[in-house]
Amino acid sequence: MTSQKTREKSKDTPLRVGLAGLGTVGGGVIRVLATHARLIEQRAGRPIQVTAVSARDRSRKRSVDLSDYAWEDDALALVQRPDVDVVVELVGGADGPALTLARAALAADKPFVTANKAMLAHHGLELATLAESRGLPLKYEAAVAGGVPIIKTLREGMAANSVSRVAGILNGTCNYILSRMEAEGLEFAAVLADAQRLGFAEADPAFDIDGVDAAHKLAILAAIAFGAQPDFTHVETSGIRDVRTADIAQAAALGYRVRLVGQAEVDAAGTLLQRVHPTLVPVDHPLAAVTGPLNAVVIDGDFVGRLLLQGAGAGEGPTASAVVADLVDIARGANGPVFATPVAQLAALPPAGSLSRSGSFYLRLTVMDRPGVLADLTAALRDSGVSIESIIQPAPTADDMALVVMVTHETTETAVRRALAAMQEIEAVCGAPLWMPIIANEGSSE
Amino acid sequence: MTSQKTREKSKDTPLRVGLAGLGTVGGGVIRVLATHARLIEQRAGRPIQVTAVSARDRSRKRSVDLSDYAWEDDALALVQRPDVDVVVELVGGADGPALTLARAALAADKPFVTANKAMLAHHGLELATLAESRGLPLKYEAAVAGGVPIIKTLREGMAANSVSRVAGILNGTCNYILSRMEAEGLEFAAVLADAQRLGFAEADPAFDIDGVDAAHKLAILAAIAFGAQPDFTHVETSGIRDVRTADIAQAAALGYRVRLVGQAEVDAAGTLLQRVHPTLVPVDHPLAAVTGPLNAVVIDGDFVGRLLLQGAGAGEGPTASAVVADLVDIARGANGPVFATPVAQLAALPPAGSLSRSGSFYLRLTVMDRPGVLADLTAALRDSGVSIESIIQPAPTADDMALVVMVTHETTETAVRRALAAMQEIEAVCGAPLWMPIIANEGSSE
Repeated sequence: MTSQKTREKSKDTPLRVGLAGLGTVGGGVIRVLATHARLIEQRAGRPIQVTAVSARDRSRKRSVDLSDYAWEDDALALVQRPDVDVVVELVGGADGPALTLARAALAADKPFVTANKAMLAHHGLELATLAESRGLPLKYEAAVAGGVPIIKTLREGMAANSVSRVAGILNGTCNYILSRMEAEGLEFAAVLADAQRLGFAEADPAFDIDGVDAAHKLAILAAIAFGAQPDFTHVETSGIRDVRTADIAQAAALGYRVRLVGQAEVDAAGTLLQRVHPTLVPVDHPLAAVTGPLNAVVIDGDFVGRLLLQGAGAGEGPTASAVVADLVDIARGANGPVFATPVAQLAALPPAGSLSRSGSFYLRLTVMDRPGVLADLTAALRDSGVSIESIIQPAPTADDMALVVMVTHETTETAVRRALAAMQEIEAVCGAPLWMPIIANEGSSE
Repeated sequence: MTSQKTREKSKDTPLRVGLAGLGTVGGGVIRVLATHARLIEQRAGRPIQVTAVSARDRSRKRSVDLSDYAWEDDALALVQRPDVDVVVELVGGADGPALTLARAALAADKPFVTANKAMLAHHGLELATLAESRGLPLKYEAAVAGGVPIIKTLREGMAANSVSRVAGILNGTCNYILSRMEAEGLEFAAVLADAQRLGFAEADPAFDIDGVDAAHKLAILAAIAFGAQPDFTHVETSGIRDVRTADIAQAAALGYRVRLVGQAEVDAAGTLLQRVHPTLVPVDHPLAAVTGPLNAVVIDGDFVGRLLLQGAGAGEGPTASAVVADLVDIARGANGPVFATPVAQLAALPPAGSLSRSGSFYLRLTVMDRPGVLADLTAALRDSGVSIESIIQPAPTADDMALVVMVTHETTETAVRRALAAMQEIEAVCGAPLWMPIIANEGSSE
């Protein structure tokens, strides 16, 4: 370990990278390091060179030339190579080869860089414990919001702040779909199909559109922001499958846009709320302006106030840019706790239950267009203790069904869920209702 | 130097701060360090403690308790104290005591932290040379955009990128004034007076409203972004005194907002354009959404794409937050070139002349409301080779004067200046015209 560390800090000697995973991002890392070799050497104080690579299939045709690098069929062999100082993992997957590689690299005293949000959300605590016990950098800027330096900002730029809230658009696929639904009035399924055709959505889009990817990222951000152990299992997660263009249109009429927002906050009782949910965002809120596949994160710190960071959340260039930024930091000798707070001091914050959350909500139900339905709905709301700010009943559709959209006054999620359960008992109510939290207008809530 | 450095890196021993300047930001630094002592110790790996302070007037009443700190009447005495590991300069001023202190601290092998944009814009090259020759951190996150971690983002987060352009709203006072003119339809002088009353503008506002403060910050950003020697003297600088609400209204009608934008870019010939100027920003551009005293910076990197950072650009909390973030970095042992590229390798980029700049422009003239004026104006434009996209002549004012607003097609600033000179020769044209560059809509120019 001592010789390893000495090597890391010494000048002029290159930082030698073993790269596992040669997909889009892996190819991007090779391209960035080749394109900007001199610039990066200036900024890092020493050259950064890939020496060895590994991927599943050596024979696969790739857009980057690999002839300068040693090849390992088994990524684990990278760890043992004496010409590898740092291991970069771009394999993906919460468990399996990526996790095995992470453990092996850290156990062999090699700094470790990854873009793997799933692995960090699930195993971040174990890996951070291992890294910190050995004094090794474990870096993952690319794991959250792609090229946006949100990890560095939270860890270092906001180091002097207690953070009260993190809210972000953390999945570019969902934001692309919602923005196109908004701009073009198309329904979810049609936009998803087109997004898949254009490469903005995976063939199996579930991880993105069900909010799981955003939840992984949120759990990582919350750990840093609140000095808490990463707690992915308690991120309440809903995706965007059930959002209709009618919801987007009604939200717009009310002065809101619909975004898939990941929000984390610690309340006065010290419980941690983590939620990924389609959310009504006021049009003048910074997240409302985020369109297309962009990511954006808003952080409220007690001294710095509100910061907004926005940029490309995915893609070869942005993600590779973040990976290489981590390598530059390592080449310079930067280190520090993986989640900003030393892992032994990370708090196990109790998760916030639904009861503790108050706010106003958007509710949408599909009902049969017949007299008395509204009276039944409002009675159910009254009986559940939910006070309504407005009810909108757009024109009925051809099949004599109608949407009813309601916005509540400040209430609790518990009351809203009770009301929704009661309303679903009403005969004229068809199918599952949709509810979305509403981010309050600035000034009214801050 | 060796003993000093050893001390910086050792754990558990506090990083001891000598603080010069106890105005708003100095008080804020003391408050942040006291409020978050434990949090900062966790993140920095060691305590950060103010040990000695200095300001002009010891007897002045202050909102922070100074009884725990040694007092020095002469800030230079901080440098010599054995219980000061790092000197923080919050005195201000490009030259004078701040510069003397910076030189002395670095010469005495003490890391140096400052919020002083004027000093860095004028003397950054000298100070960086001194710091790097001695291997010392010289950090200045608070000097640009207050609490927004733009220096860290450019230096570290974007280290893997070649930057093509930086554009920012870098002065909160100007943005506050322009936003209020826009929202309330008031003229500049009235809003300025009110801003002074409310503390958003200084009693002597010239530094802010004439664009000098923004120009200092732009020169610093350009140095980091382009690996160039800071070159404040070639920042072309115009302020906002001549912007009228009529300009803002006409810009709005055309789909733009008026912002004081600092822009820096390197063209194909390797010349550096640096300009601070009231600018027409398309309403869907990220900078158009920035209102009130906020700052925001947009950076275009070749791999990461476009990043936006936004937040509070001034004030006690945000600025102190940035100063303490620098201290945390120093406590962790972070170092590296002051302007990201080692100072000896910073290029002396030739300044871009007006001739090299093309784009479209907003022109506004005041004319006597009489027949034939428009014909004379358009003839002057034609003779200068400036092609016009639109001309608007709002209703004449009571005194028979009228505004004429023109938007040019893509042209050069040289041609625009020639046209303006010709138009001022026309008898019916009264007073000085106003011109503003227009940031092109995305897609049309990117």
